[in-house]
Amino acid sequence: MRYKAVVMYDGTMFHGFQSQDNLRTVQEEIEKVLKIITKKETRIFPAGRTDTGVHAIGQVFHFDYEVEMQEWQIKNAINSRLPKDIYIKNIGIVSDDFHARYQAVRKTYQYVINLNEFNPLNKNYCYYYKYKLDINKMIEASKVFIGEHDFKSFTKNHKLENTVRTIYDINFEIENNVIKINFIGNGFLHNMVRIIVAMLIEVGNGRFSIEYLQEAMENKNRKYAPKLAPSNGLYLMEVSY
Amino acid sequence: MRYKAVVMYDGTMFHGFQSQDNLRTVQEEIEKVLKIITKKETRIFPAGRTDTGVHAIGQVFHFDYEVEMQEWQIKNAINSRLPKDIYIKNIGIVSDDFHARYQAVRKTYQYVINLNEFNPLNKNYCYYYKYKLDINKMIEASKVFIGEHDFKSFTKNHKLENTVRTIYDINFEIENNVIKINFIGNGFLHNMVRIIVAMLIEVGNGRFSIEYLQEAMENKNRKYAPKLAPSNGLYLMEVSY
Repeated sequence: MRYKAVVMYDGTMFHGFQSQDNLRTVQEEIEKVLKIITKKETRIFPAGRTDTGVHAIGQVFHFDYEVEMQEWQIKNAINSRLPKDIYIKNIGIVSDDFHARYQAVRKTYQYVINLNEFNPLNKNYCYYYKYKLDINKMIEASKVFIGEHDFKSFTKNHKLENTVRTIYDINFEIENNVIKINFIGNGFLHNMVRIIVAMLIEVGNGRFSIEYLQEAMENKNRKYAPKLAPSNGLYLMEVSY
Repeated sequence: MRYKAVVMYDGTMFHGFQSQDNLRTVQEEIEKVLKIITKKETRIFPAGRTDTGVHAIGQVFHFDYEVEMQEWQIKNAINSRLPKDIYIKNIGIVSDDFHARYQAVRKTYQYVINLNEFNPLNKNYCYYYKYKLDINKMIEASKVFIGEHDFKSFTKNHKLENTVRTIYDINFEIENNVIKINFIGNGFLHNMVRIIVAMLIEVGNGRFSIEYLQEAMENKNRKYAPKLAPSNGLYLMEVSY
């Protein structure tokens, strides 16, 4: 049986999703629990990795287990054993050829910028930005990124062969001095959302022009986009198949 | 000079407000910073203690420092050195006879009960309650506690001489399956809000009657109110002078 699960996690206390020696990761915590339930090593395959501090509302992973369990049964079995900063929202049996990563057709990330005075209760869940931002300029600038582009300037990883991705939409929700920027695309390169957000902020504060962003895109080199917005403002919201 | 400060903190990683040997507390963190600024041991006096895991939006404390500093100056000096889970909201010079504890005339606490499905991103900031609650019954039951009463049944500390307190109001804010209960009173005994909340929940789930709460109050013994709601749902909102 192949199981597909939708998982939420608070990224604060994790060194990202993917297993790493001697570091606490989401994958390791879930696989530890699955080992208890399935009584053997059970590897999970996520839609994609998330970095240290990045949160998930709708990360997806799959794994194989020959026993057929009902949704509520396996959901409870896993959640009751997981640490409180991970929670399985949905889980169920899918067809054997389902693959969380290869079959993902659309991903949505959200980045939260908070322009209010700092609140220690919210410190892990948004980026507190202290200076003025021209939000209309940021909205205009975001259009540079919409569509199919080579995002080589906007990724940490320069070794990838194919750095072309399509962003279907970037939209802004603004309420009570909190800016939520939603990125919907067919896939995102390593650090891509956080680099784009950092560049949009540089436009919002007047340091960069929209024309500069276009140049940065054309030059296909990270040195044109050296900034990176903090991880704690980023959420993997949804993966669609 | 006597300074009065309003401070917010995320109680998650603290063993409460008050200094304790070898444990991380809010008081210790603030006094460490004040020692750097004032160049001597500087003790702070809070409006009251809060327990491990309890949050504050408007805790108040005072301390003495012979140098006159402007509000923005001392606020920045302290906040830039504090860990990110504590933040001074306001600070300024008050009259020499101001006392954060003895002159407090009203305190507001808020308790947050969340009836939605568990969300790991919110786990430290509310009490997730899994069962049905009759909120109208809870509102009715809360009236038992309003007014001047001997709250001996509703406190951890049985040794206090005077366990009479006045609750001016208890009101409920209900939105999206989240219940926020505000307690406004002249003072609260140790664990009093969390014990009352636990008892209101027992009325809401049908286990206790409103008459039972009245009996519990009259019997002046904690054994009639043995429950305690978790600390992470509790916020010290405001102290008035």
